[in-house]
Amino acid sequence: MKKLINHVDDVVTEALAGMEALHPELIRVDFENQIIVRKDAPIRGKVGVISGGGSGHEPMHGGFVGHGMLDAACPGAVFTSPVPDQMLAATRAVNGGAGVLHVVKNYTGDVLNFEMAAELAAADGIEVASVVTNDDVAVQDSLYTAGRRGVGVTVLLEKIVGGLAETGAPLAQVTELARKVNNQGRSMGMALTSCTVPAAGKPTFELGDDEMEIGIGIHGEPGRRRVKLASAAEVTEMLANPVIEDLGLKAGERVLAFVNGMGGTPLIELYIVASELAKILRGRDITIARSLIGSYITSLEMAGCSITLLRLDDELIRYWDAPVHTAALRWGV
Amino acid sequence: MKKLINHVDDVVTEALAGMEALHPELIRVDFENQIIVRKDAPIRGKVGVISGGGSGHEPMHGGFVGHGMLDAACPGAVFTSPVPDQMLAATRAVNGGAGVLHVVKNYTGDVLNFEMAAELAAADGIEVASVVTNDDVAVQDSLYTAGRRGVGVTVLLEKIVGGLAETGAPLAQVTELARKVNNQGRSMGMALTSCTVPAAGKPTFELGDDEMEIGIGIHGEPGRRRVKLASAAEVTEMLANPVIEDLGLKAGERVLAFVNGMGGTPLIELYIVASELAKILRGRDITIARSLIGSYITSLEMAGCSITLLRLDDELIRYWDAPVHTAALRWGV
Repeated sequence: MKKLINHVDDVVTEALAGMEALHPELIRVDFENQIIVRKDAPIRGKVGVISGGGSGHEPMHGGFVGHGMLDAACPGAVFTSPVPDQMLAATRAVNGGAGVLHVVKNYTGDVLNFEMAAELAAADGIEVASVVTNDDVAVQDSLYTAGRRGVGVTVLLEKIVGGLAETGAPLAQVTELARKVNNQGRSMGMALTSCTVPAAGKPTFELGDDEMEIGIGIHGEPGRRRVKLASAAEVTEMLANPVIEDLGLKAGERVLAFVNGMGGTPLIELYIVASELAKILRGRDITIARSLIGSYITSLEMAGCSITLLRLDDELIRYWDAPVHTAALRWGV
Repeated sequence: MKKLINHVDDVVTEALAGMEALHPELIRVDFENQIIVRKDAPIRGKVGVISGGGSGHEPMHGGFVGHGMLDAACPGAVFTSPVPDQMLAATRAVNGGAGVLHVVKNYTGDVLNFEMAAELAAADGIEVASVVTNDDVAVQDSLYTAGRRGVGVTVLLEKIVGGLAETGAPLAQVTELARKVNNQGRSMGMALTSCTVPAAGKPTFELGDDEMEIGIGIHGEPGRRRVKLASAAEVTEMLANPVIEDLGLKAGERVLAFVNGMGGTPLIELYIVASELAKILRGRDITIARSLIGSYITSLEMAGCSITLLRLDDELIRYWDAPVHTAALRWGV
């Protein structure tokens, strides 16, 4: 196992220390509760937006804490759900009296623990709403998940909903927009290589030198099929077409195209995928009105990519374009 | 070779097509000359700032073209210098009558070709100045280089100098600031794994499962020494201490700390390195006043990292903080 780490038990805590050291103007880390909190939280009268999940997907979610996006993030151990106490601590830390939205990726542990945290917060008198993202079209049920997995749309949702929350909109409206974003986006991913969970010390799964996995999950969960290596053009077809069809995108529509790296894939390859994706969309008369490219929801050092398409309208564009200042996404400020 | 590519000969061209497809508001690609040009270039009365070098280091340099940074970039084939004709075309494309600065990383091919392009541009009546970055403290001479290699400082220089150029400052002042940034920054990198140049189809060098290379160059050139795998704390010491000492940083000084990934290293590991770097700097009473973390000057899918420290003063901070809008770096706009 070749990694830039110290002890495997300290990976998450030490990465959090690094975040705090480099971004003291944006965040503070509550090490006791293992949560990352926006520096100026709680903000009176603003809906708090929090998320969380296993570590190993960086910059998601800690890299999205800041102005115009998340108010707090709860990182679990690598590929392991955070516990309800973390989520409760985060909910309390960002409660400015207008309620808190929990953004939950659809993995059974995350869903159950966020539900428990919401009940505990309600007992504290904090109004909590939840939205569960489930945008992965690859498989219906999966390891760790009943129903579809929550993946790339989560990133876009946190940005867009964070933009609305920043305006002081009420919890019901923020929650409604979150549901809308989830409904309007779909994703699919693939892997060229496995990743290695530090505590396991060996690859999560084995792939032959001439194989790739189409429809992979962000923890290396099996996808739709294991196939022989193919060209970037073929891979992009295999990912984009199911997304486009599931979403029912029609000629004349506008999308946000998100080409995501799994952690070990260099940007030059992502741009080749982007070029193929642009061709496919052009062929269907679908316009890329906004885009995001880079490694934003990752699986440690896994090589591979995912494609997320989000159907855009003026409302989504407005809050996508709104100022954001986090460690991983920043513009307008 | 597991890569998201089509034909090995088309890697650079197709990645450029992806850039143009995703960032039409920022750049245009001149495919005939293989250059990336800022959408609104040339800008009357503004010094043009261009750079270039072999591909495979993305987002450098094409991802840095835009408001407040580069006016154009010239990508060569993977790990191969661009040719003088590209550099001349870029110089002409960004010449707004105030002259053009060439930012050149110290590799023999890049230096010679930029010199030739500068002569050709001068024959056209375009005033050209050049600055050669040579911040890598690992080795004195190297494969492809006489003297020190130009690495991470190049990224910081392009941002800071681009910020000054945006104000309409004259070429002499822009060039002077570029020299200052180069003088005030030092870097050192390491690799856990090799990378594979697409056209070669096999790893550039071999590293044992229990080995790493300290002082590696961004094309996999040999570094200072090959050693047994060590902890992130030890690796960070091996990189940071030579940088601090070469720069002569003293207690009470402020730095920009740049923790860079080589392309295949996930962000969670870079944050662990950042945590160790912060400890080392704190121990020497040096303040991290600004930071940058992520994979900005890469070696394809190489796993590893580099550390760059830049001695800051108010002038450098002012232009670092100035608005920038490129594919890879954006703030304030």
